[in-house]
Amino acid sequence: MEKVLVIGHKNPDTDSIMSALAYAHLKRELGMNAEAVRLGEVSKETQYGLDYFKVEAPRLIEKAKPEVEKVILVDHNERQQSVDDIDDVQIIEVIDHHRIANFETAGPLYYRAEPVGCSATIIKKIYAENNVEIPQNIAGLMVSAIISDSLLFKSPTFTEEDRTAAMELAEIAGIDIEEYGLEMLKAGANLSDKTATQLVGLDSKEFGMGDYQVEVAQVNAVDLNDILERQAEIEEAMRAVLENKQLDLFVFVTTDILNSNSVAIAVGEQASAIERAFNVTLENNRALLEGVVSRKKQIIPQLTDAMKA
Amino acid sequence: MEKVLVIGHKNPDTDSIMSALAYAHLKRELGMNAEAVRLGEVSKETQYGLDYFKVEAPRLIEKAKPEVEKVILVDHNERQQSVDDIDDVQIIEVIDHHRIANFETAGPLYYRAEPVGCSATIIKKIYAENNVEIPQNIAGLMVSAIISDSLLFKSPTFTEEDRTAAMELAEIAGIDIEEYGLEMLKAGANLSDKTATQLVGLDSKEFGMGDYQVEVAQVNAVDLNDILERQAEIEEAMRAVLENKQLDLFVFVTTDILNSNSVAIAVGEQASAIERAFNVTLENNRALLEGVVSRKKQIIPQLTDAMKA
Repeated sequence: MEKVLVIGHKNPDTDSIMSALAYAHLKRELGMNAEAVRLGEVSKETQYGLDYFKVEAPRLIEKAKPEVEKVILVDHNERQQSVDDIDDVQIIEVIDHHRIANFETAGPLYYRAEPVGCSATIIKKIYAENNVEIPQNIAGLMVSAIISDSLLFKSPTFTEEDRTAAMELAEIAGIDIEEYGLEMLKAGANLSDKTATQLVGLDSKEFGMGDYQVEVAQVNAVDLNDILERQAEIEEAMRAVLENKQLDLFVFVTTDILNSNSVAIAVGEQASAIERAFNVTLENNRALLEGVVSRKKQIIPQLTDAMKA
Repeated sequence: MEKVLVIGHKNPDTDSIMSALAYAHLKRELGMNAEAVRLGEVSKETQYGLDYFKVEAPRLIEKAKPEVEKVILVDHNERQQSVDDIDDVQIIEVIDHHRIANFETAGPLYYRAEPVGCSATIIKKIYAENNVEIPQNIAGLMVSAIISDSLLFKSPTFTEEDRTAAMELAEIAGIDIEEYGLEMLKAGANLSDKTATQLVGLDSKEFGMGDYQVEVAQVNAVDLNDILERQAEIEEAMRAVLENKQLDLFVFVTTDILNSNSVAIAVGEQASAIERAFNVTLENNRALLEGVVSRKKQIIPQLTDAMKA
């Protein structure tokens, strides 16, 4: 039977890894020869979840061809976030919860996006619609994704649908969601052994905004100072990416997972867009974004508007 | 409560009108202040269905603003097929069964596309997922849409899901689907009172293909000669559109609904793309496309590939 790869985005976060695994499992149950793959390193946060539920990480790939002709995208749709040869394969399905941009197909497809906090929440609905039972370990991966994307229910992207899904999945998985969730987030927020270059690349996404190319990276921290005291080397690493990718703006966001604030460091010719987007003043190339924890809902739309202004 | 317009595509076909009405009804049942609108004239085929089930046509609009800030798109997503000021409003949902292209949002949304034959088939599923009952007259509109898009089950876009949905809807609507369907299609295929300019604009859609702008119009006929004997004046009308819109290619497709073939008339600098796409030779600017009845599945992808070659 023809093989189909289920692919999460580059610089995979926990949702991209877990949703790829969960959706590939569902498609196999429905008779498709589907395999979850990944486009980058597994984070410590994700590894914590994989280890806890005793599931192997998806296989790392660099290209989809010539192995397959067809792919399913989870947790992303924008071409530049996907596998490098995405234009050479057929996208037969997309399961996502982000804006739609830089995406085009020649023919019809199954595209399921919902404005919820996590791809895994949508995948849980698709399990139910197809009357497929979610195994204990897959439920554990899926609730890990919701905990990650919602920062344990603190992000404004988080909806009642996510909460209901998370509670039901936690029950199937047999975990105390608060206790497990905090341990998982802490595992991911330990960044002390990362080089500056690793930090800026850990969870970094590129966006087209009007005529500009913008990259926005985000890391979680238990103590913002762990990151801020390394600002000089982080900026150096950011400028290297900026130059290499010919970006107009690179924003590095550190999010305090206990107090739900973020600090943004901005470099590039369009750095002042941050000031317009958030009505702040950059000092030493950085600014506090109070109450901001969600890149998708609290940073990208505001920045997109500011770049057009 | 904030009003939301539910919009089908320009040059609305039966699916665009009926699905807008059916989805607006569903959203009202779910508590939204939703109104179906249309972006063009109601065809004779569609009017037959509206009259049969005693439902008023949606209101004609030219712009969404300033009346509303938010819209829902049904049966299309490509910007150039939508309301002229689509870039100035927020698209909160899309229900569609076409390829995705020329579509971009600043934030997340509900996007539901499935590779089925008709938007109404997807809307029927969403009724079920929300446990909302489909009234008799709305079921009649929805089955009319499936009959139209499937040419009474003859189009290759037609899937088992469409068939199941159509049968269930026909039962709720209380019609004999074959008898009603043929009468409805015949009502639409009577083109004798249309001017050539009306014919080429009846169901015409514009597509971006690589670097080219292409428009593909389609009409149904019971006898192809009704159209072909008017080729001279039709070509003249096509060239007027070509020049006016600065298109690279205009293809006018007449589909024989009884024998499931089509004839394409092609004008424009890129007319030879038709020859590459279908391995045919244009004679007198036209070619028979055997077994081709679906613009979406049997014309647009092939033409898109040929334009890139």
